[in-house]
Amino acid sequence: MSIKAGIVGASGYGGAELARLLYGHAQIQLTTIAAHAHAGKPVAELFPNLVNAGDFDPVEPQQLAELDLVFLATPHGPALELGAELYDAGTKVIDLSAAFRLSASDFLQWYKEAHPRPDLAAGDTQAAGDVVYGLPEFHRAAITTAKLVASPGCYPTATLLGLTPLRELFEANTVVVDAKSGTSGAGRQPNDGQHFAHVAGNFTAYGAPSHRHTGEIERWLGQAVGPISFTPHLVPMSRGILITAYATLRAGITQDDITDALMNAYQNEPFVHVLKPGSFPHTKAVAGTNACHLSALVDGRTNRVVVTSAIDNLGKGAAGQAVQSANIMCGFDETQGLTTIGLYP
Amino acid sequence: MSIKAGIVGASGYGGAELARLLYGHAQIQLTTIAAHAHAGKPVAELFPNLVNAGDFDPVEPQQLAELDLVFLATPHGPALELGAELYDAGTKVIDLSAAFRLSASDFLQWYKEAHPRPDLAAGDTQAAGDVVYGLPEFHRAAITTAKLVASPGCYPTATLLGLTPLRELFEANTVVVDAKSGTSGAGRQPNDGQHFAHVAGNFTAYGAPSHRHTGEIERWLGQAVGPISFTPHLVPMSRGILITAYATLRAGITQDDITDALMNAYQNEPFVHVLKPGSFPHTKAVAGTNACHLSALVDGRTNRVVVTSAIDNLGKGAAGQAVQSANIMCGFDETQGLTTIGLYP
Amino acid sequence: MSIKAGIVGASGYGGAELARLLYGHAQIQLTTIAAHAHAGKPVAELFPNLVNAGDFDPVEPQQLAELDLVFLATPHGPALELGAELYDAGTKVIDLSAAFRLSASDFLQWYKEAHPRPDLAAGDTQAAGDVVYGLPEFHRAAITTAKLVASPGCYPTATLLGLTPLRELFEANTVVVDAKSGTSGAGRQPNDGQHFAHVAGNFTAYGAPSHRHTGEIERWLGQAVGPISFTPHLVPMSRGILITAYATLRAGITQDDITDALMNAYQNEPFVHVLKPGSFPHTKAVAGTNACHLSALVDGRTNRVVVTSAIDNLGKGAAGQAVQSANIMCGFDETQGLTTIGLYP
Amino acid sequence: MSIKAGIVGASGYGGAELARLLYGHAQIQLTTIAAHAHAGKPVAELFPNLVNAGDFDPVEPQQLAELDLVFLATPHGPALELGAELYDAGTKVIDLSAAFRLSASDFLQWYKEAHPRPDLAAGDTQAAGDVVYGLPEFHRAAITTAKLVASPGCYPTATLLGLTPLRELFEANTVVVDAKSGTSGAGRQPNDGQHFAHVAGNFTAYGAPSHRHTGEIERWLGQAVGPISFTPHLVPMSRGILITAYATLRAGITQDDITDALMNAYQNEPFVHVLKPGSFPHTKAVAGTNACHLSALVDGRTNRVVVTSAIDNLGKGAAGQAVQSANIMCGFDETQGLTTIGLYP
Repeated sequence: MSIKAGIVGASGYGGAELARLLYGHAQIQLTTIAAHAHAGKPVAELFPNLVNAGDFDPVEPQQLAELDLVFLATPHGPALELGAELYDAGTKVIDLSAAFRLSASDFLQWYKEAHPRPDLAAGDTQAAGDVVYGLPEFHRAAITTAKLVASPGCYPTATLLGLTPLRELFEANTVVVDAKSGTSGAGRQPNDGQHFAHVAGNFTAYGAPSHRHTGEIERWLGQAVGPISFTPHLVPMSRGILITAYATLRAGITQDDITDALMNAYQNEPFVHVLKPGSFPHTKAVAGTNACHLSALVDGRTNRVVVTSAIDNLGKGAAGQAVQSANIMCGFDETQGLTTIGLYP
Repeated sequence: MSIKAGIVGASGYGGAELARLLYGHAQIQLTTIAAHAHAGKPVAELFPNLVNAGDFDPVEPQQLAELDLVFLATPHGPALELGAELYDAGTKVIDLSAAFRLSASDFLQWYKEAHPRPDLAAGDTQAAGDVVYGLPEFHRAAITTAKLVASPGCYPTATLLGLTPLRELFEANTVVVDAKSGTSGAGRQPNDGQHFAHVAGNFTAYGAPSHRHTGEIERWLGQAVGPISFTPHLVPMSRGILITAYATLRAGITQDDITDALMNAYQNEPFVHVLKPGSFPHTKAVAGTNACHLSALVDGRTNRVVVTSAIDNLGKGAAGQAVQSANIMCGFDETQGLTTIGLYP
Repeated sequence: MSIKAGIVGASGYGGAELARLLYGHAQIQLTTIAAHAHAGKPVAELFPNLVNAGDFDPVEPQQLAELDLVFLATPHGPALELGAELYDAGTKVIDLSAAFRLSASDFLQWYKEAHPRPDLAAGDTQAAGDVVYGLPEFHRAAITTAKLVASPGCYPTATLLGLTPLRELFEANTVVVDAKSGTSGAGRQPNDGQHFAHVAGNFTAYGAPSHRHTGEIERWLGQAVGPISFTPHLVPMSRGILITAYATLRAGITQDDITDALMNAYQNEPFVHVLKPGSFPHTKAVAGTNACHLSALVDGRTNRVVVTSAIDNLGKGAAGQAVQSANIMCGFDETQGLTTIGLYP
Repeated sequence: MSIKAGIVGASGYGGAELARLLYGHAQIQLTTIAAHAHAGKPVAELFPNLVNAGDFDPVEPQQLAELDLVFLATPHGPALELGAELYDAGTKVIDLSAAFRLSASDFLQWYKEAHPRPDLAAGDTQAAGDVVYGLPEFHRAAITTAKLVASPGCYPTATLLGLTPLRELFEANTVVVDAKSGTSGAGRQPNDGQHFAHVAGNFTAYGAPSHRHTGEIERWLGQAVGPISFTPHLVPMSRGILITAYATLRAGITQDDITDALMNAYQNEPFVHVLKPGSFPHTKAVAGTNACHLSALVDGRTNRVVVTSAIDNLGKGAAGQAVQSANIMCGFDETQGLTTIGLYP
C-alpha cells in the first residue's frame, strides 16, 4: 500500500530534507514539490543533492487537497492559511511550522498575532480532537487518528525529549535550557548572520531571553515546571542541536532515579537512545537521522541534574519527525524511510 | 535471498562506513565487524553513530572463511595476507586497500614491496580471471563472476570516472590532475596533521609529486595517456573529493564531442550524473552517497578541457563502491542499500 | 628599556601563542623558546606560522634563571617544579598552568595531588605576598610587585570577568555556567577527540559535572556565591570561548543595576568591552586578541540575569593575559604588544 | 612623521581589513572610514571586531581629496570614477579594485567595459608614469614615486609571486593554475553561494574557464608564457588562497635551477618565504599577515614543476599589500603595521 503526498515550502531546508527522505520512502510517493517563489525553476539550483528532482511545482491548493497527505514546510503565516484550507477539505496535513503548536492565547503572546483558527491550535484545550501536537514518543495514540499534526519545533523536540520524563523530579522554577544549533536552523535565506565568513570560527548567543520556542517548551513541558530560561546559540556547523538543561532536584532524588525515569520512558522507543553514564551525546552521531541521543548526570555538589540531548534539527527536529508522524497516521511501520545511524564522520 | 558478510578493519573510517551502509542493506546480513586492535571494545566508543553495533569482533580467518563475502578495510599489508587466504579458501572478497589493484611490477614501484601473489594482482596481465579491479561502470561484467575484487582508491575513482570516456580525445602527456580531499581520506589515526585546530581554516598540498595513487590512475587510465601530474590537497572538511583535471585536446575536438562522450558513457548509469554545462560539482551534494557528479568544459583559449568530478571519498571512493560491487557479485539490484541523494546542507 | 624573557613549553598552543605575541613586542626580547621533548627540532614543523623561529631550545633551569622573566606554558606538573625553582632563584615567573592558582586544599580536592609548596599557592591565605593570581582587571596592584603570577585559566577568565562585578546581586546557590570552547583549549596533542573529521560538524559536552576549572571559578568568585554548575562544551572552531552564565537576582535588581555594575567595573579597562543591550559577544570578534566582550540581560519572567562573555582562549585566556601581566610587572604600557581588534572574518 | 588617510568602501571585507591594519599603524592616522550605503551606521554592526570604530562616514570626494592618501576598497565601478577624481586633484590613491590594473584593451576584453581613462590604466603602455601596478616585490621603485597604485588582485598576487621568477624556465603555453580561495574572497554581500550551511563541508570550482583574474595574471606574467588555464575553487574557510601551478620545464632545467631562481628573487624580501623542499605552504600559517609562503617541486616523470603559493587573500592579497605600498609611497619602513606571523592555530 502506498499514498500520494506533497510538500509545500520545498525551497526551505526543512522542505528539501523532506524531499530527500521521501524519495527513499517505499510507501509514500512524492508527487508534488511546491515552492511559491521558485515554481518552474530546477530544484537542483538550490539543492545540488536533488539533481533528479526536476522543477519546483507551483502552490495550488485545490490540487494539493486531492493528495492523501500534505507536508507544510512554509513559515507559519502561509501555513495558517493553507493548513486550515486543507484541513477543512479533509486532507491530512502535517505542518512543520509554529502555526498550530500553541494555544491561541500563547500564540498571541509569543507570535504577536491573533490565531485565526483556535479550533486548530493544538495547544488549546478547545482544539478539535483530530488536531495533535505531534511528538510521537508522547502523543503516538493521538497521532494515529489525527487529521492535522502540528509537528514540534527543533529546540522543543530536543528539550522535551530530555526533560519530560524527569519533570516531576524537579523543583519548580529552576529549569535553565542552554541550547545550541547549527546554522540550517536559521533557514536558507542568505543574510549577514549566515555568511560563511561570519559563522566559521564564531560562536554566539542570539534571541535571548525571549526566543519564541520558549513558549512552546513551557506549554508542553507543563505549568508545574514554571517559567524556564532559554538561550539559543549559533554553532559553526550546518546541522544539529544540542541542548544542555539544568534543573534543581527535589530532595532525595538520585542518579538512579534519573536513569530509571529515562530508561522507562525510552527503552522501547526506536529513535531515542539513552547513553551510558559518562558518555555525552554528539550532534554528528545523529546527523541525517531521526534519532535523539540523551544523557543525564546528577551533580551532588549543586543538587542539579544536567541533561544533554542531541538531534538533527532537520531530522528529528523537523523533516524526520514529520515522516515519523506520517508513518503513524498512515499505518506504516513507524521507522519506514528513516534511519538512526548518523553520517559520521 | 540474503547473504552473510563480515567486515575486517572496522575501526577505520572505510570499515565503519561499510557498517553504516550494510546495517541498512536488505539482503546483506552483517554478522562480523572485526577490528584487530579493538576487539572486545564497544564500536560506539570510536563511532558514536553506531550506538547499537555492540563490540568489535576479533579477526578470525577461519570463521571469516565461512561467510559468503568478506570486506577487507584494513591497510594493504594485512589485506595482502588475509585476502589471499580467503581467496584460496573460496570465500568471496572485496578489498578496499591497494593490495590487489596494480600489477606486481607497479606495486613494487609505488609501494616499494614485492607483491607476494601476482596471480591476485588485478592490474597484472597474468592475474587470475576471477580477480578484478572493481570500478563497476567499466568492469561490470567481470565483477559478476569475480571472486576477489580490488576496489579502487578514492582519488582514482574520481579521476577515472571523469577522464576515461574522454581519454582518446587527449594529446598524450598533457594530463594534470589537481585533487582535493576531506580529512577522512587520511584515516582515523590521530596525528598532528589531522588535528582540528590545525586543519580548520587551513588548506595545503601534500604528497606531491609521488603520491601512490598516481600509479593506480596511470595503470587504469591507460598507457596512451602518458604520465600524469597528480597533486593531492587537504580540504578543511570531513568527507568528499573533488578532482580538477586538465588535458590538451587533439585538434578539432569541441565541447560537443566532450559532452557526447560523457553522456554516451553514463546516460544509463545509476550513480554517475553529468551536470549541465556551466554547473560545477559540489562535494556536499554527494556526501553519504555512492554518486559521482561530473562536468567538463572546453577552453578555446588554451585548447584544454577542464574536468571536475566529485564523490564522497568514503562512499563511491570506498564503502559505497564496495557495496555496489557486492550487489553485482551477488546478483542483487545494483543500487540496493545505496543512495544518490547527498546529505545537504 | 627592554627585558630578556623565555618560554618553557613552547610546543603547546599556549606557548606558541606567547611566541607569536612576544616576537611583536617592542620591549620583551624573546631569547629562549624551550620545549623539552622537541629540543633541537624546527619550531616551524609544529607551528607553520613561526617560520623564522629556528629550533626549540632545551629546558635548562640554570640558564632560565638568568633571564628577567620566564613564562611557563607546560602542564601543571612540570610547572610546580620549575616555577618553585625559578621563584627561589629570584627570577620573575608567569605560570599559565593550574600549578599555583588554588589553595593547597583546593588543589588537593580538584587535582588529586598534595601541593608541594603551599607558600606559592596563590589561592591560599598563607601564600607569600609576591605570589599573585593574575587577573589584571581585579589584581592589578598586586601584580605590579609580584614575583610569581599564577595566570588564570581560560574558562575562569571568561567567567570571572562576566560575573565578578555582579556577584553581590545574585541569590546564593543559583549560578549556572554553560561554557563553550574551541578545540585549541584541549591542547596540541593529537587524540581521537581532536581529529578534524570527528570535530567538524559536531558539538558535544564533556567533563561535566566535575571539570577542574569549577574549583578555580568558585575560589575566585567567592564563597558567598555558593557552588556552581559548570558544563564545558567543545565547539567546532579552533579558538575562542563563550560562556553563558545564569543567576537568580536578589529582589528588586533591575537591568540598570546590572548594566551600571559592569560599566563601573570596566569603563576604564582597555581590554574589556561591554556591548550595548541587545548585542551578543562573538568569539571571532576577539580572535587573536587580549579582549573580552560582555553582555548581560535581565529576564523578568524568570528573574534571572543571563551573562555572555567571549574571549580568545589562547589570548585573554592564556598568552595574552600573561603578556598583560608581564607588562604590569615590568612597568611597561599595559597594552604593549597586544591588540583588541580580532581577526574577523 | 605621520599622514592622514581614509578608506572608501569600508563596508567590504577588504576595507574592513584595511581599518584593522591601520588602527595599529604608528604613522598612518585613519581619519575617514567611508561606506556609501552604510553611512551613519555603527561599524561594529557589520564588523564586531571593530567595536571602537564609531560610525561609517559618508563618501565625500572633496573631503577625501584633502587627505594625504586614500585607499579605495569599492568595486571597480565606483573606483574608476573616484580614483580618477582624486588623482586629478593630486591626492595619492591606492586602489584595491580591478579598475586600473589592466590595459584599456584588456579591460574591455575581460570586464566588458570601455576604460574611461587609459592614461590611468597601469597595464597600458600609454599610462602615466606615476600610475603603477603595485606588486612591491617587482615594482618597488616605481611605487616610491607613484600617485596612483593599482593594487593587484588576490589570485594574481599569489600566482605572480610563485611564477614570475621562474617564467623563463617554462615551455610556452603549458601553464595551468589551479586556485583555491576562502569565502571572504567573494565579498561580504550575502547570497546562496556564501551561506554557511552551503559552504561548510563543501568544495567546488567556479567561474572557469574565464574568470577575470586570468587576464590580469597573463598581463603581468608576460606574453611569452602564453595563455594559461585558470580554475578558481571555493574552500570552506574564511580566509586564505593557495594556488597550485603547473608548467612544463624547458629541457635541462633542474630542481636546483628552480630553487635558485626563487631564492635569488626573495632572499631579501621581508614578506616572501620560500619553504624547504618537501614542505608545503599552509594558508593558516599566513592568516592575518602580509606574508607569502612558496614551494616549488620538479617532477622528473612529467618534466613539470609544481609551484604552491599561499597568502591571506585579505592580507597580501588585498589590504596588507595596499599598506605595504602605502609604506613605500610615504617613505615609511616597508613592514610598518604589518606582520608575517599568521594567527595559527
